[in-house]
Amino acid sequence: MASKPIAIIAGVGPGTGASIARKFAKAYSVVVLARSPENFDPVVQEINASGGQAFGIRTDVSDSKSVNAAFDKIAAQFPLSKVVAAVFNAGGGLVRKPFLELTEQDYSMALASQAQGAFNFAQRSLPLLLDSREFSEYPPTLIFTGATASLKGSANFAAFASGKFALRALAQSLAREFGPQGVHVSHTIIDGIIDIPRTKALANEYVDAKLSPDAIADSYWYLHTQPRTTFAFEFDLRPYLEKW
Amino acid sequence: MASKPIAIIAGVGPGTGASIARKFAKAYSVVVLARSPENFDPVVQEINASGGQAFGIRTDVSDSKSVNAAFDKIAAQFPLSKVVAAVFNAGGGLVRKPFLELTEQDYSMALASQAQGAFNFAQRSLPLLLDSREFSEYPPTLIFTGATASLKGSANFAAFASGKFALRALAQSLAREFGPQGVHVSHTIIDGIIDIPRTKALANEYVDAKLSPDAIADSYWYLHTQPRTTFAFEFDLRPYLEKW
Amino acid sequence: MASKPIAIIAGVGPGTGASIARKFAKAYSVVVLARSPENFDPVVQEINASGGQAFGIRTDVSDSKSVNAAFDKIAAQFPLSKVVAAVFNAGGGLVRKPFLELTEQDYSMALASQAQGAFNFAQRSLPLLLDSREFSEYPPTLIFTGATASLKGSANFAAFASGKFALRALAQSLAREFGPQGVHVSHTIIDGIIDIPRTKALANEYVDAKLSPDAIADSYWYLHTQPRTTFAFEFDLRPYLEKW
Amino acid sequence: MASKPIAIIAGVGPGTGASIARKFAKAYSVVVLARSPENFDPVVQEINASGGQAFGIRTDVSDSKSVNAAFDKIAAQFPLSKVVAAVFNAGGGLVRKPFLELTEQDYSMALASQAQGAFNFAQRSLPLLLDSREFSEYPPTLIFTGATASLKGSANFAAFASGKFALRALAQSLAREFGPQGVHVSHTIIDGIIDIPRTKALANEYVDAKLSPDAIADSYWYLHTQPRTTFAFEFDLRPYLEKW
Repeated sequence: MASKPIAIIAGVGPGTGASIARKFAKAYSVVVLARSPENFDPVVQEINASGGQAFGIRTDVSDSKSVNAAFDKIAAQFPLSKVVAAVFNAGGGLVRKPFLELTEQDYSMALASQAQGAFNFAQRSLPLLLDSREFSEYPPTLIFTGATASLKGSANFAAFASGKFALRALAQSLAREFGPQGVHVSHTIIDGIIDIPRTKALANEYVDAKLSPDAIADSYWYLHTQPRTTFAFEFDLRPYLEKW
Repeated sequence: MASKPIAIIAGVGPGTGASIARKFAKAYSVVVLARSPENFDPVVQEINASGGQAFGIRTDVSDSKSVNAAFDKIAAQFPLSKVVAAVFNAGGGLVRKPFLELTEQDYSMALASQAQGAFNFAQRSLPLLLDSREFSEYPPTLIFTGATASLKGSANFAAFASGKFALRALAQSLAREFGPQGVHVSHTIIDGIIDIPRTKALANEYVDAKLSPDAIADSYWYLHTQPRTTFAFEFDLRPYLEKW
Repeated sequence: MASKPIAIIAGVGPGTGASIARKFAKAYSVVVLARSPENFDPVVQEINASGGQAFGIRTDVSDSKSVNAAFDKIAAQFPLSKVVAAVFNAGGGLVRKPFLELTEQDYSMALASQAQGAFNFAQRSLPLLLDSREFSEYPPTLIFTGATASLKGSANFAAFASGKFALRALAQSLAREFGPQGVHVSHTIIDGIIDIPRTKALANEYVDAKLSPDAIADSYWYLHTQPRTTFAFEFDLRPYLEKW
Repeated sequence: MASKPIAIIAGVGPGTGASIARKFAKAYSVVVLARSPENFDPVVQEINASGGQAFGIRTDVSDSKSVNAAFDKIAAQFPLSKVVAAVFNAGGGLVRKPFLELTEQDYSMALASQAQGAFNFAQRSLPLLLDSREFSEYPPTLIFTGATASLKGSANFAAFASGKFALRALAQSLAREFGPQGVHVSHTIIDGIIDIPRTKALANEYVDAKLSPDAIADSYWYLHTQPRTTFAFEFDLRPYLEKW
């Protein structure tokens, strides 16, 4: 068990994060980070109960001390030289309001969750990914989750779009710096409603009109397995019925 | 044999097209179209010799009569209702010249090869892809091959970039029209030198500095297998050392 | 009169083209090209009647012979070394149809009007613009008119978007090649309905909801007057009420 | 004097900000904000000495208290209902380092200067711009200054690009929300080295190879004068010799 490669996934709730954890847990030990254990406990238990290995750590990615503490806990449990994948999937910062009703904190929270959080996570992950290049079967991989708001600043989405644009800038910069060093950095555009418990209420009269978190997870695994000759940086995922 | 699904691949030489044909031939019968039989004969023989089924048709995609004749030949050999994938990978139109040295024909050839050729191919493929929706295990798929020049009109590339920009517009329009009908339309950005016999002379001092045609082909198959809840429209592929 | 600088404007009807002609005619002699004299006769007469100098030539920009004949006529009337501005504003190719109802000619016409036409016009204009660098008060300027469809291939707009994407690629390539030689190449995105006689029927309940052709013309003149230290390549123009 | 319209310009040093102040001061009273009076004193004195009206306020835009205090000072000096233009041109956050050498503060400073600063400035400016719609000759205008890093996250520019991407998201969102209310929101891409005292050392062997701050200022004034039928949201400005 101790010899398995390790994937660290930040931002795990009942949706995409849990699916990514399940997918990577088929081959790797997974460490999942979330603000509240309620978010990761179910998937951690499920993975461990079914023969995989998962470990959850309560973490606030927007707080560098919390991120540092989380990586210290990982170091106490796992050989850090085997971390071959890191996924930044943190939510937070999604508020929809007319601009003049946004509070200063609404805006700074979006930047903290999406941009500063991704910075904190990348600063601790990248040294590990560089170290595992020899060990890893596939090029070590760092994936960031984007959204429609990564490409378009819509009315009433000033805060979230600012965070998501910043996150994409960070991902591009890291891809250009660490790609040539053999680390695969990617960014995905999740363009549509994800089919998770929280969105059940958003009933849709059509079948298959929401993104499947398992299919998103499959695509993250696919990115991870690409050889360094042929890295994808970015792709956009949406349901067949989505307007764009 | 006759019951296998069918993939049609336009633009098959010794590189990406051949790799796509080999990849899809693991599960499907493949029909390959190219201007000259020299381009497709080797891969057709290789596939047939190794237990697959491949069929080559001399076709000039920029000429609608030639495309129509090719699809008539396909109809004579295969049940058209089983065409579940179509790939437009045609080359042509790549000329690098100062603008005032470009001939009218240099420019019109790029449009004819890339844009009009893709139009001709899509007009014959899409009705078949719509028809195979019930039959196909995966959503029927139409993929177009783009390039660096799909996103950037560089100096001295006016002709090729015009063709590739037009091709991307076509792909976007078809994705928006046929996605909601259950056909997966995608466009890839191949950003770098592909590792094929013709580029061997472009020696590169670094290992793995060229795109692997087999890895490109894997990504096309991956696109084909995505469920309709989670279609990727576009991704960019490049070697880890590529500047971008 | 003979000593005035000259602007050549391709694509002049009762809307934007006529406004551009009027604007440039305040300082320059203008030559206007259109498929039919009915399109340019009114503005030519108006300019000449009010003390300016305008000259119309029946031209099909998609036909290089017709473009060559037009430039020969210009040479017979004007000193070519004084051509300091050229604007490609040709319409054509705008057809809105489901893809499978598009004819081969619908598609090829869009490429011919927008892309090949711009190629023909640029090949004859650029040598003149290079020649006038010493003479011209402002950097000689070549402007291409784009549209919403230059950036987005919408459903049912495959033909027009292909033409407009190709035109943008051409403009980018020329800007990168001829900018460093001192010719200002620009591309505009006209995103909205233009307020011209033909669109009066498209009544809009809001005031000022359509683009003003005179304001578009002002922006073209503004581009022309920019110094070479500070060239704009592209901007987007839309009415304040436009959704985008 | 008291009846003049007012422009507020945040981010005024010896370069672009000073040129914008001079340009707008030809018609308006100008209020200039900067972190240090050394930055704005010369241009304030110059404008006041030459018959214009300028007023400088020491402001840290990244601190909402400081921004609020600045607007309170403006209110004590000027009729707020006459504020017809606001320009966010603040620098800050430009640090070029390998990612693993960036400090947490390097990154948060870039977000604070560019994104949170623009948020603070826009929240105080927009109510004034909405109020001046009847009074203003031109549609009230809010312009944000972007950079190459607004569109591309280059290696070693993770912090600055994150800030500039976020700023562009904010600008887009505000344009979509306040454009339909008659306020013109724009974003410019300044792509190249600006010709200011600080960049003199960056000698360039070619003439005119740097952006002219006065020409940039002209373009901001041009944006301000556009009618609401024909708003530009974004343009890119670069020297004729710039590679892009």
